[in-house]
Amino acid sequence: MPRSHGSEIDTLIQLLAKLPGLGPRSARRSALQLLKKRDSVMVPLANALHDVADSIEICSECGNLDTVNPCHICGDIRRDQTTICVVEDVADLWALDRSETYRGIYQVLGGTLSALDGVGPDDLNVEKLISRATQEDVTEVILALNATVDGQTTSHYLAERLEDAGVKVTALAHGLPVGGELDYLDDGTLAAALRSRGVVT
Amino acid sequence: MPRSHGSEIDTLIQLLAKLPGLGPRSARRSALQLLKKRDSVMVPLANALHDVADSIEICSECGNLDTVNPCHICGDIRRDQTTICVVEDVADLWALDRSETYRGIYQVLGGTLSALDGVGPDDLNVEKLISRATQEDVTEVILALNATVDGQTTSHYLAERLEDAGVKVTALAHGLPVGGELDYLDDGTLAAALRSRGVVT
Repeated sequence: MPRSHGSEIDTLIQLLAKLPGLGPRSARRSALQLLKKRDSVMVPLANALHDVADSIEICSECGNLDTVNPCHICGDIRRDQTTICVVEDVADLWALDRSETYRGIYQVLGGTLSALDGVGPDDLNVEKLISRATQEDVTEVILALNATVDGQTTSHYLAERLEDAGVKVTALAHGLPVGGELDYLDDGTLAAALRSRGVVT
Repeated sequence: MPRSHGSEIDTLIQLLAKLPGLGPRSARRSALQLLKKRDSVMVPLANALHDVADSIEICSECGNLDTVNPCHICGDIRRDQTTICVVEDVADLWALDRSETYRGIYQVLGGTLSALDGVGPDDLNVEKLISRATQEDVTEVILALNATVDGQTTSHYLAERLEDAGVKVTALAHGLPVGGELDYLDDGTLAAALRSRGVVT
């Protein structure tokens, strides 16, 4: 097979293609873009990757990924330590935190219960959550799992486990997404929005 | 603004978002994927970027980007040194070379003539092409520029400049793309395909 470039470049393209959203073709385009912007993008990116890879840690409190342990959230004393928000994944934690509505702390579960995939309670950070929830100062646990079957099953399981923890257990509301059009929404969402309708003030 | 992760991770996300095909959201997803696959993807990618950034060079012969100079193509003695294929960009060179049809050498032009953008012949590798084309052993120059207005204008200009170089000047054929459906093709392509029709053997 003929080669138009060195194997180092091939290696780079193959690694870039592993990023979500990049296929072989866009990885090649990315590699070329990087080659052309050697000093402004390529070297800084390599350095940033090294920096983060060297310092990345899983927060021993909540399971967040950060460069410090405890993470920026658990280490922030201005955060409300009485409320724990349970999320499936670090991506969900970041997404919720970007909304800037919630100022409490988090617990990353690490997935959902799934009989099909053989994921049981022991594979998730359930015990960690229970032990944190039973701490004196915690008053509320918000279940912010995905609105999927597995997510909801896990919510029910956690609500049951938290019954004796002496905390209020809540879950995210179901309803219309902001900006959503009724015509395009599924029946389940519409039914949930109707059931949870509120009085207009 | 609250922070759910360290500034090193923000820097990484911002740099990833500069890759073509990745926006802010997919850059965040990519960063998370990298964090989770620290040893299998993140560190190798950082190393690959460093390796390539350290060794990348513009081939002094053809203008290809490679880790060696002259590049793998110009340095390959099995390649046909009598034919030069002119392309606008390194991406085009790689694309043509992947097709494994062409076994000659290349000349990267570095763009196309464009009155609008103020790109004249001096901004492109035209003189380099002329001097290489006038070398004794070169017999053919293939113009493989994009089928855009600028690309075709540049092709005409190059054909004129190469008139006295004593080489055959050819250009890529216009016609149906392989797998293309007539119904979806523009009039220009259909007209070109019709004009250049060949006898079925």
